[in-house]
Amino acid sequence: MSILITGAAGFIGSHLSEEFINKGMKVIGVDNYQLGRKKNIEKIIDHKNFHFINSDILDDNFIKLVNKKTENIDEIWHFAASSDIQSGTQNYLLDMNNTFLTTAAVCNLAEQLNILKIYFASSGAVYGNKRGRLSENNLCEPISFYGTFKLSSENFLRSNFERFLTKVVIFRFSNIIGSHATHGVIYDFIKKLKNDSDTLEVLGDGTQQKPYLHVNELIDSMMFINSKIGEGFNIFNIGPNDDGAKVKEIANIVIEEMSLNPKISFGSENRGWVGDIPKIQFDTNKLIKLGWEPSFSSLEAVRIATKEIIAENKSLQVD
Amino acid sequence: MSILITGAAGFIGSHLSEEFINKGMKVIGVDNYQLGRKKNIEKIIDHKNFHFINSDILDDNFIKLVNKKTENIDEIWHFAASSDIQSGTQNYLLDMNNTFLTTAAVCNLAEQLNILKIYFASSGAVYGNKRGRLSENNLCEPISFYGTFKLSSENFLRSNFERFLTKVVIFRFSNIIGSHATHGVIYDFIKKLKNDSDTLEVLGDGTQQKPYLHVNELIDSMMFINSKIGEGFNIFNIGPNDDGAKVKEIANIVIEEMSLNPKISFGSENRGWVGDIPKIQFDTNKLIKLGWEPSFSSLEAVRIATKEIIAENKSLQVD
Repeated sequence: MSILITGAAGFIGSHLSEEFINKGMKVIGVDNYQLGRKKNIEKIIDHKNFHFINSDILDDNFIKLVNKKTENIDEIWHFAASSDIQSGTQNYLLDMNNTFLTTAAVCNLAEQLNILKIYFASSGAVYGNKRGRLSENNLCEPISFYGTFKLSSENFLRSNFERFLTKVVIFRFSNIIGSHATHGVIYDFIKKLKNDSDTLEVLGDGTQQKPYLHVNELIDSMMFINSKIGEGFNIFNIGPNDDGAKVKEIANIVIEEMSLNPKISFGSENRGWVGDIPKIQFDTNKLIKLGWEPSFSSLEAVRIATKEIIAENKSLQVD
Repeated sequence: MSILITGAAGFIGSHLSEEFINKGMKVIGVDNYQLGRKKNIEKIIDHKNFHFINSDILDDNFIKLVNKKTENIDEIWHFAASSDIQSGTQNYLLDMNNTFLTTAAVCNLAEQLNILKIYFASSGAVYGNKRGRLSENNLCEPISFYGTFKLSSENFLRSNFERFLTKVVIFRFSNIIGSHATHGVIYDFIKKLKNDSDTLEVLGDGTQQKPYLHVNELIDSMMFINSKIGEGFNIFNIGPNDDGAKVKEIANIVIEEMSLNPKISFGSENRGWVGDIPKIQFDTNKLIKLGWEPSFSSLEAVRIATKEIIAENKSLQVD
C-alpha cells in the first residue's frame, strides 16, 4: 500500500510518516520546508519505502512531481497546513493558502490520479468560542482565520465526497504536543527562557485552559480509527477527555523542567490574542465508544512533551 | 447614509439598490456584468443618488475606484456571488472566486475604509442534505461548492467580526424568484420552452421540493430585519414557512402561464445534479418571532414570478 503524506517533514506529518514506514507501507512524503524541518525526517529519509518530494503543493508542477515518484497511491493524508492560529490573525492569506488552497490542490490531485481516500488534519478551532464539552454534533462557529479555513477544508472535502471520494476522515485535533514541534505554547516558553532566563512573559492572564494530547497518542488514535471505520464521510474529535491544562500550569512545568526560577509576567486579558479561545473542553465520547482512550491526562502529556522539546532543542539558537 | 452594494446589477442586488434609492439613501453599486445586466438597473442608473462602478471586485484597483466615488460608506451589502449551484458543480473556482474571494476582498475594503457593517447574501445550501425543518441552530454540512463557499464566507465574516466589524447580518435565503432573475428553475423552463415548445426536459424526477420566496418579499424581510436588530453577529433564515413547491408543480405552472402543451420528460433520479438537495424545508421561526412573515406561499410566489419572467423575457432569444 502506498500513502501520500503532505506536510511530511512537519510536526505531526513526520511522526505519521515514520509510523507508516514502520508498518511496512510505502510513503510518498511532500513538504516545502516552510514549517517542516529536515531534522524531523532524518530517521526515515534514506529508507527504501520513503520517497520524499521537496515541493510546494501549490506549485504548478506538483502533480507531475507526484506522478514521477509512484505508480499508484491508495490514500492521501493531508497534513500540510498553516499550523499556528496566532500568526494567521492579521493575515488571512496564510491560512487560506497553506490550509485551504492546499486542500483544494490535494483534492484536484486525487481526482486526476483516481485516489479515493483522503484523511485530513482538522482542529477543535472549528467550533469557535463555546462553553462546555464540544462534540462533533456542536455547531461550528470559528472566530479565527485558522478555524475558518480548517472548516472550509472540511466542507470542501465533503463536497468532493459527494462528487467522487469514497472515504474521508476528518480528525479534529485538540492541542497536540511532543517532539518535532515547530510552535506552540511549550515550545514558545522554552524559546523565551533560553533568550532570557530571568523573566517569562505569558500571553494572557494564564487562566486559558485547553486539552493537550501527546503526538504519539494522536498517531495511535488515528491508526485505531482507520482500522475501525470503512468508507464514508466521518469526523472525530481527538483529545483527552479531561478539563485540560492551564497556561500558568504549563509555565510552571516548563520552569521546573528547565530548573529555572524566572519572574512570570502575565497579561491582563483571559485570552492570548484576538481569535484565541480561552477555555476549550473536548467531548471525545465518539472516539471512546469506538474503543480508544489516551493513557495520559493533559497535564501528564505537557510534562512528557516539555522534557522531549527541551532535549531536542538543547542546541536551539537564541534569537 | 451611503451604502455599497456589490452585485448591484444582479438579480437581487438590483432590487436592493432600487429599494435603498427609493428610501433616499445614496447607493454605490458595483457590478462586473458577469451575471448582472444593464437592463436590471435601467430605472436607477441615472438617479443622482446612484453611483455605479463597473468593476470586478477582485481587480487590483477596486478599492481605488470605490474611494473615488464617495467619501464615506456606512455599510456594505455584499450580494455579488456565483448564484448558480449547478454550474459550480464541476469547477470549484467559480464559487471560490466569485463568492468567497469577493467576500474576502469586501472585508479588506471594509477594514481599509473603516466600514464596520456588512450584510451578506448567504443560502440555505449551507445546511446540506438534511430532512426536517432546518433552523439556524442546525449543523451546517454543505455538499456543494456553492454551499461550501457561502459558509466559508459566513465564517470569514465571523472571524472579521472578532477583529473589527461591529455588525454582521447573514441572510440565509431559500430559493428566491421574480423579475431580474438570471437563472433558476422557472427561468430555465421558460428558456427551454422558447427553444422547443413540444418537449420540456426536467432535471431529476420532478419530486424535488424547495421553498420559494418572491424577491420583493425578500427585500421587505431584509429591511425589516435591519430595522429591528442592532450591532452584533446575526444569522437569519429567510423564506416561506411552508413545505415548498415541487419541480413538477413548477413545470405545470410555467406550461399553463405560457399556454403550451408540451410532453414533459422527467429524469430518473430524485435530484437534478450532483450536489442538488432533493427536499429542503426551512424553519423561519426566528424571523417570525422577530415579526416578519411572507404574504405568499411557495406555490403562489412561483405563479407570480412565472408571470413576471415571461413578461420581461418576451424578447428572450432562442439559443
